[in-house]
Amino acid sequence: MNKAAVKRIGVLTGGGDAPGLNAVIRAVVKTAVRVYSMSVVGFENGFGGLIKNQAREMSEADVAGILPIGGTILGTTNRDNPFHYPVTRGGETTFVDVSDRVFENISIHGIEALVVIGGDGSLAIANELYDRGMKVVGVPKTIDNDLSATDQTFGFDTALATATEALDKLHTTAESHHRVMVLEVMGRYAGWIALASGIAGGADVILIPEIPYNIDVVVEKINDRSKEKKKFSTIVVAEGAKPLDGDIMVKKKVEGSFDPIRLGGIGDAVAQAVESATGKESRVTVLGHLQRGGSPTAFDRILSTRYGVGAINLVAAGGFGRMVCLKGQHLDSVPLEAAVGELRNVPADGELVMVAKKLGICLGD
Amino acid sequence: MNKAAVKRIGVLTGGGDAPGLNAVIRAVVKTAVRVYSMSVVGFENGFGGLIKNQAREMSEADVAGILPIGGTILGTTNRDNPFHYPVTRGGETTFVDVSDRVFENISIHGIEALVVIGGDGSLAIANELYDRGMKVVGVPKTIDNDLSATDQTFGFDTALATATEALDKLHTTAESHHRVMVLEVMGRYAGWIALASGIAGGADVILIPEIPYNIDVVVEKINDRSKEKKKFSTIVVAEGAKPLDGDIMVKKKVEGSFDPIRLGGIGDAVAQAVESATGKESRVTVLGHLQRGGSPTAFDRILSTRYGVGAINLVAAGGFGRMVCLKGQHLDSVPLEAAVGELRNVPADGELVMVAKKLGICLGD
Amino acid sequence: MNKAAVKRIGVLTGGGDAPGLNAVIRAVVKTAVRVYSMSVVGFENGFGGLIKNQAREMSEADVAGILPIGGTILGTTNRDNPFHYPVTRGGETTFVDVSDRVFENISIHGIEALVVIGGDGSLAIANELYDRGMKVVGVPKTIDNDLSATDQTFGFDTALATATEALDKLHTTAESHHRVMVLEVMGRYAGWIALASGIAGGADVILIPEIPYNIDVVVEKINDRSKEKKKFSTIVVAEGAKPLDGDIMVKKKVEGSFDPIRLGGIGDAVAQAVESATGKESRVTVLGHLQRGGSPTAFDRILSTRYGVGAINLVAAGGFGRMVCLKGQHLDSVPLEAAVGELRNVPADGELVMVAKKLGICLGD
Amino acid sequence: MNKAAVKRIGVLTGGGDAPGLNAVIRAVVKTAVRVYSMSVVGFENGFGGLIKNQAREMSEADVAGILPIGGTILGTTNRDNPFHYPVTRGGETTFVDVSDRVFENISIHGIEALVVIGGDGSLAIANELYDRGMKVVGVPKTIDNDLSATDQTFGFDTALATATEALDKLHTTAESHHRVMVLEVMGRYAGWIALASGIAGGADVILIPEIPYNIDVVVEKINDRSKEKKKFSTIVVAEGAKPLDGDIMVKKKVEGSFDPIRLGGIGDAVAQAVESATGKESRVTVLGHLQRGGSPTAFDRILSTRYGVGAINLVAAGGFGRMVCLKGQHLDSVPLEAAVGELRNVPADGELVMVAKKLGICLGD
Repeated sequence: MNKAAVKRIGVLTGGGDAPGLNAVIRAVVKTAVRVYSMSVVGFENGFGGLIKNQAREMSEADVAGILPIGGTILGTTNRDNPFHYPVTRGGETTFVDVSDRVFENISIHGIEALVVIGGDGSLAIANELYDRGMKVVGVPKTIDNDLSATDQTFGFDTALATATEALDKLHTTAESHHRVMVLEVMGRYAGWIALASGIAGGADVILIPEIPYNIDVVVEKINDRSKEKKKFSTIVVAEGAKPLDGDIMVKKKVEGSFDPIRLGGIGDAVAQAVESATGKESRVTVLGHLQRGGSPTAFDRILSTRYGVGAINLVAAGGFGRMVCLKGQHLDSVPLEAAVGELRNVPADGELVMVAKKLGICLGD
Repeated sequence: MNKAAVKRIGVLTGGGDAPGLNAVIRAVVKTAVRVYSMSVVGFENGFGGLIKNQAREMSEADVAGILPIGGTILGTTNRDNPFHYPVTRGGETTFVDVSDRVFENISIHGIEALVVIGGDGSLAIANELYDRGMKVVGVPKTIDNDLSATDQTFGFDTALATATEALDKLHTTAESHHRVMVLEVMGRYAGWIALASGIAGGADVILIPEIPYNIDVVVEKINDRSKEKKKFSTIVVAEGAKPLDGDIMVKKKVEGSFDPIRLGGIGDAVAQAVESATGKESRVTVLGHLQRGGSPTAFDRILSTRYGVGAINLVAAGGFGRMVCLKGQHLDSVPLEAAVGELRNVPADGELVMVAKKLGICLGD
Repeated sequence: MNKAAVKRIGVLTGGGDAPGLNAVIRAVVKTAVRVYSMSVVGFENGFGGLIKNQAREMSEADVAGILPIGGTILGTTNRDNPFHYPVTRGGETTFVDVSDRVFENISIHGIEALVVIGGDGSLAIANELYDRGMKVVGVPKTIDNDLSATDQTFGFDTALATATEALDKLHTTAESHHRVMVLEVMGRYAGWIALASGIAGGADVILIPEIPYNIDVVVEKINDRSKEKKKFSTIVVAEGAKPLDGDIMVKKKVEGSFDPIRLGGIGDAVAQAVESATGKESRVTVLGHLQRGGSPTAFDRILSTRYGVGAINLVAAGGFGRMVCLKGQHLDSVPLEAAVGELRNVPADGELVMVAKKLGICLGD
Repeated sequence: MNKAAVKRIGVLTGGGDAPGLNAVIRAVVKTAVRVYSMSVVGFENGFGGLIKNQAREMSEADVAGILPIGGTILGTTNRDNPFHYPVTRGGETTFVDVSDRVFENISIHGIEALVVIGGDGSLAIANELYDRGMKVVGVPKTIDNDLSATDQTFGFDTALATATEALDKLHTTAESHHRVMVLEVMGRYAGWIALASGIAGGADVILIPEIPYNIDVVVEKINDRSKEKKKFSTIVVAEGAKPLDGDIMVKKKVEGSFDPIRLGGIGDAVAQAVESATGKESRVTVLGHLQRGGSPTAFDRILSTRYGVGAINLVAAGGFGRMVCLKGQHLDSVPLEAAVGELRNVPADGELVMVAKKLGICLGD
């Protein structure tokens, strides 16, 4: 391990947008240039830029002022896996391995190590590149906070803030109109945003992928509140929430007794089921991309910055094939392969679920 | 006109939720009690409470602390027109005039004048009550800002702030992903929120009900930006925006060549049309009820407060059958019938549209 | 008047920072380049750059993305009056007229018209340049909103939002601690920020320069609230608020019976006087420069953009020696000399003061 | 240990205001009532209410809607230590032990256990009460985040957000005016707010109590930036920051060569020293009480809620003399005596300081 070994690095951001990407890039460039006298090449649009050699030199001036700004100055994409790259010939698309081009472009630029900032998809590619001999370090990113190898990913705190603010807004309208207001938030496999924003925003019902819900239980909760003279309710639903098998309301939906024009995602299904069963006006709001944008919270700016500095420290220390992570309150690192194994789901009997239940929040079970 | 004439008033909030309702209620109660020694009865849930005699005395203590809080402590509803009230008998619903009950309840409470805070629907009812002899004054409310009798309604500035903040968030994601991000905002008949938030948020395209859009013009704008190396675009669409008759993209939609599962409102139609024609990833976010909630902006709190004080001044001065309004920067009043005549639309050749066009924003025409 | 006459303009920002300066610059450049094919030269740091010939060409690319960002990319300063410019020789500073350099630099760059964005100081200089033959148009800026020639300056709405948010924060602490919380805001000569934020934030006392206050009246208000079981109060004080001549509390201060270490501005004097007279813990917060920074509100972004477009329309129409302004809700223009005459003070018997008083807010008189 | 043992509890909030107090109270009441069928008595204004028997029954209705609201519905105070209570007789104040009254009032209300929400002062009193036989559990609160027994206190994240937002605002003004902007934040003994907000807001200099600063080093940093054509700088100073002994600038201050009128706290001293040494305009903003108020962030609402639930779990489990705390990401508990021992200072060689230094931030050493 020789600290002087690496003199030139590449960096890219991959996967969906998340608040804090720019803060990581800034910390990577500043630390590399100032502390270790490395030069930095930024690849554009995730692995796409690495495949097509879309790259630019990055100095401290390039990252000035980007700390509080959402998005990524390098661009990003959910596509362009070099091991599974789409090639269209004669109207037909096949997927091929173009990773040779990646190694070639790395070589052309004289790059000795690569920093990959991304979610499980990007980190899996990073790990495969490492297996094939590239010096790679990873920085974990997902607003869903569902990477098992780290206690927190950057972007989550900002998404949580956005969801909580939305719930605050819906709360007053729910109360004024005696309505049931449903907020559908991100979380296809893990319910962290839904659970955390539901607790922070004082929701009455929270439905997450980890706990299949019984719509009758939800309806009962709404009706119980009515009996207590609480004429309104708020419900947070993760996009990946699922009804119990054989759920009557869902059957009704399948059988077409719900208005098909209004039918959207799971949030809409819940709103219709609740309105149908309780007679209370129910409305759904799908928060969508708003959760991925905007200026990162102070917490996310700091975590992103720590990750960026930590990634370059890893590079300098020769800690390749690893990813920075947060363990408790401390910065640490783990092998990339550990990062891309399984999801970090909400434990159905964990503290946060228990907290919600003790407050009287219905989890649908 | 005798200032001592009115000693007891009623107040209600009707129509959709809007930030500032509580601020009006607070100003109404404080001014009535402190300045004119009037007592105040609050009717719950719009005209519904007036019909069903759901009422409570209101003192200054009841309105303490509600100034910054969204919604209305009196409750509101979009239904319950006393001149067109649904009665269901034998499974059949007919609509009847129950306004007698309203006059009866007013009489039971010894109320001499009624303050109605609401949109064009509620103000039309207020006007009809006035025509039948009730002493009524109105306070104009709509987040759409489309009442012809006032230069600004409360709630609009907050809705505008929410829409602009959303556009700011989508902007960075659009830029990072080289996408077209479409934001659908409220405005069924008037495009004020769309036009104002589009200018404030730096949108590239703004589509409003007043200017039927040609999708080819929108597509050309996106393509022109691509040629200038601007790989992303943001579009704000009012929910009431409409394509030109015979619009090809719309025909395609009708003919089913668009994915029906994704098909939602007009924002979705625009996103699909743009993606189809430009090949650029396009995403839609429907802001929905978020525009009606939350703490009112400073401007809306002040306007609401001025309206509340002004309404009681009108009552004290015997200015019945009138509505407070804003003319330029000054508080004024107009007859209620003027308020409910026609909508205040965005003039297609007005200053704000001209400003947008000079900045290079595409209005779809 | 020939629309083709002006082909090259200069632009500068002068005076104190205000949210919206960048939005004006952006609209000026976009409109000039896109609509009128003018080229634009930006002078740096107010009139200083015009004197020292610190200038740069400005294209649309230079103003991309600056709409939501506070401050000014051109830089600004409160100094550097070309008609009263400090020259230091032999340790002694004298003030000389260096306006020849301004005309020379304008000529060097081939500039035919100058857009000056600034407050009364900068606009007075602009007017004097116009009197000496320069083609000048002005854009009014001051967070104090005290220019008599326009109903609203940009920057004010954002400053108001910041002050109101601060008051919201102090409110809960005041209530929790049963304290008197004093917020000192900007407004040396005019009390618009104090009056508007005080109404928006539900203050109990508002002290403004236009209404000299009697501290006994303030103390009585606090004590009256205590009798009503309201154990806390909030006070907003404009930095230019002044006690009535002969005010006892002020005399005490002058005589040294107040703690000199704690003594700061007028906010501190009020806090000490109130604490001394009521025995209630009183704390002051001076908001200071926070009012000048940050992303402009949607309203300010729109007003700034309208002003920027309007200024170039004026240039194109040959409307020199004039300043854009807002009359009611409409964009208009007035002679520069009208703009720099007298301040727009809060009328002591105007609607906003009356609104405050009817709500029970104490103005100190 | 018998879960049914405690059927009636008391709760109070003590010390300085902090965002999240209401969220803790809400969780305490809801969990006690719903889960354990306990009744709850709230004491007003910290230990003062316990001494003077100012108390009220608390039901779920009393805590409805308070989750997002700053402050404490129970009131709080920094005074009223029952072991050191001021009694004034004949104009002379002595301090006496009135803890008998506390035990008496607890007995009068039939309270079996007491929940104390507060900082080190309140928790020390709680511990002393426990030593004398009272069943007490604690909840740690301080916006300074300097309690050694927990990894995070509630209120800190909100204070950090407020400080970061302030720094964002000052940043654009600093840049526009080429000024040095100094932000003084809370932190008498520990620099967590200063360090974290400085990193999050991109400060150039951060001065904290744990690292005595050399003003020459600060000045050199500002000058180095000027050489790199960065004409502005931002500095965050904790109120407890201290210059190195023998610091020249401080000597000058003591000798009176600084303007005494402008002289305020340490932030002002730094601003004057920097302006004097660099010739750059320098301005200070003291954030003060704004850091204690406002709606808690989502993180603080969740942490407060977890603490409130956890405290009642402790009561139910008989874990008296203990305080809930956060260890890493997990809720835990520690003896109260551990909580009030020593402060949790910023380690001068810890990760966060290293991160700051690697980014090029000057810590004054």
